[in-house]
Formats: sequence, C-alpha cells, structure tokens
Amino acid sequence: MHHEHHVTSSETIRDIVIGMSDGLTVPFALAAGLSGAISSSTLVVTAGIAEIVAGSIAMGLGGYLAGRTEADHYQSELKREYEEVERLPEQEKAEVKQVFAEFGLSEPLQQQIADEMAKDKKKWVEFMMRYELGLEEPNANRATKSAITIGVSYIVGGIIPLSPYIIIDHAQQALYYSCGLTLICLFIFGYFKSKMTGQPALSGAFKVVVIGALAAGAAFLMAKLITGK
Amino acid sequence: MHHEHHVTSSETIRDIVIGMSDGLTVPFALAAGLSGAISSSTLVVTAGIAEIVAGSIAMGLGGYLAGRTEADHYQSELKREYEEVERLPEQEKAEVKQVFAEFGLSEPLQQQIADEMAKDKKKWVEFMMRYELGLEEPNANRATKSAITIGVSYIVGGIIPLSPYIIIDHAQQALYYSCGLTLICLFIFGYFKSKMTGQPALSGAFKVVVIGALAAGAAFLMAKLITGK
Repeated sequence: MHHEHHVTSSETIRDIVIGMSDGLTVPFALAAGLSGAISSSTLVVTAGIAEIVAGSIAMGLGGYLAGRTEADHYQSELKREYEEVERLPEQEKAEVKQVFAEFGLSEPLQQQIADEMAKDKKKWVEFMMRYELGLEEPNANRATKSAITIGVSYIVGGIIPLSPYIIIDHAQQALYYSCGLTLICLFIFGYFKSKMTGQPALSGAFKVVVIGALAAGAAFLMAKLITGK
Repeated sequence: MHHEHHVTSSETIRDIVIGMSDGLTVPFALAAGLSGAISSSTLVVTAGIAEIVAGSIAMGLGGYLAGRTEADHYQSELKREYEEVERLPEQEKAEVKQVFAEFGLSEPLQQQIADEMAKDKKKWVEFMMRYELGLEEPNANRATKSAITIGVSYIVGGIIPLSPYIIIDHAQQALYYSCGLTLICLFIFGYFKSKMTGQPALSGAFKVVVIGALAAGAAFLMAKLITGK
C-alpha cells in the first residue's frame, strides 16, 4: 500500500515535469521567434496563448488516449493468454521453458518450472504477460489523471515565458525578461528532472537550458529570415 | 538478424507517426488560432514556422537526451548488478528466489533455479536486469536516429497545415483549406497509427481527428477572446 502510494506520487511529479518543461520550452521559443519579427506584444501573447491551448490539448488528450490504448491492449492480450493456456497448454509450457532456456537453465529444471507454474493458471498467465510479452498491468485511472496533470503543467509552464509580454508592450524589450526568467526556470526544472531520474543534476539542468536556448535562438533567426527584418 | 531489422523499421515508423501527428496538430491549431485574430497570412506563416522550428528542436533534442539518459541509466545499473553478484551473491540469489516466489513456485524449486542461474554470471546479471529491475538494454544508435526521425517528421507534418497560408494571402480564407487538408491528413495518420498498434483503425483515426479539431477550435476561440474581435 505504501509502495503503491510512492509510485503514484512520483508518476505525478514525472507528469508535471514533462508538461512543464515542454510548456516552458515551446511557447518561450515561439514568443522569442515572433519578437524577432513583430514589435507588438499583444500579437506575441495571442500567438503564445493559442500555442499553449493547442499544445496542452494535444499533449493532454494525446496522453489520455495513449494510456487508454495501452490499457485496452493489455486487456485483449490478457484474454488471449487465458484462452491459449486453456486451449494449448503444452505450447504455453514450451514458451515458459523458452524464457528460462535463454538464461541457460538446464532442460529438466525448465520442465519442472513449467509444470509447477501450470498448477496456478492466474499466476501462469501473469508470468506470460510480464516475461514473455513484457507487459505490465496499466493503472486504469492513471490515464485520466496523467492527461490532466500534463495538460495543466503545460499551461502553467507556458504562462511563465509569456508573462513579460503581458506586462511590457514592446516585444523586443519583453524578450529580455522572458529569456532571463525562462532560462532560470528551465535550469530549476532540469535540475529536479535529473535528480529524479538519478542523473547528475547540474549537467542535466544545463542540457535542458541548452535545448530551450537553441529552440528560441533558431525560432528567432527563422522568423527574422521570413519577414526579412 | 531478420527480427532485429523488423524491430528497427517498426520503431522508425512509430517515430514518424509521433512526430508527424504532433506536427500536424499543434502548428495547425496555432495557425487556426491566429487566423481568428489577424488577417495577414504572412504573420500566421511566421508564427507557424517559428513554432515548427521550436517544436522540432524540443521534441528531437528532448527525445535524443531522453534516449541517452536511458542508456546511461542501464549501464550504471548493469555495473552495480555485476558488483552485487560478486560481493553479495547470497542476497542476489534471494532476489532471484523472490521473483519466482511471486509466481507461486515452491521454495525448493526457487532454490534450484537460483543455484543453477548463479553458475553463469553474465546470464544471472541479465536476468536480474530484466526481471528484477525491468530494464531492457537500450540500443545506443536508436537515440540519435529517433531524434532525427521525430524532428524531421514534426517539420514535414507542420508544413502541411501551413501550406495554404503560404499560397493564400488572406488568413481567414487560407484557414478553410488548412482545416480540410489537415483533418484529412490527421485521419490518414490516425488510421495507420491505430493499425500499427493493433487497435480498431476507424475509431482510432476518428480520435486523432477530434483531438486536432478540438485543439484548433479552442485556439481559435481563445485568440478571438484575447484580441476582442
């Protein structure tokens, strides 16, 4: 029970980090790009908010449907494994033996394992799902929760780089504040993201900042090129 | 060898679908949103291309770094397992037994498996990696190839909804063609995406179209609200 809780909360943090670091990066780069082409902050904010709305729906709903598809896939494979265990028990036993043959266990031991496992059909099918097909049972509520968390985090992340443009009328001036603010936030998020995945935190934070800066710089140059300014 | 090839090419197709369906959705919705607020196609194209540049860099480089992180994580866990097998063989054997205890195998059989597996350290460690830690060895070249494939597909996908704005000067007029063209492309991609994952193809295609239409509609309304038009 405690373990279960731990998994759920760390998955939520992972979703927040996914949504927020993308939300910080793409609207930031779009706003920076437009600042290279137009001087009105209102248009930058309009484009930025249209992007945030579009991106959060695409990521959130996309994530939700991916989760649902995964759950459906697991259920249909589970049903098929139960049928196969009933209909072709010898073939399924051979598949269990195959798993252990790959790890160099002797044939008599493989046979013993397959025979003993076949006594409990539920556990047998569970074994096939995890070790033959490599499928873990997905949590049904996860998909919805994950979609909402990623979508909301994308919105929160996206508001940060846009906020200077909301306050300052002149886009090129707002750009400086947006860069400063967003790169600091990207650094903080990169730091926590790396800590969570057990990677070196400083170099991880640096990588996230570099992606954001590269995306913004490239968008800025491209927008200048198109409008010929 | 043949199997390896099959896996690689289907992963490439998966990356193309990921990049292209996101590329179709977000720039499409952004352009639609801006069409609700401004009448100049040039600005819509500028914003759209800035978004495509930002999005492809964020997705491509982000995917690349995620792949590299995964590969580093695998290597560090592998090293640790080799050390533990040397230093604490009895504890590692107990962990092997634990895996099989969960599937209801008897204690003497668990012991036999652990003893036999301990004879080949390479396979023992491989077993611990896959079945205790749930880690598959990542392909080192995959990360780079995957990043390029996703990034390029995002660009190709994003050009499709923007193309009517490049040809037609008036944004509201271009919007109709962009909607028609993009929704058809989203349907085709949704269809192939669902086929590939073994889901019902028509309902899958329908879902992808709905996400795109919702994102575009919401961005359009939001942009109209902000600019008060």
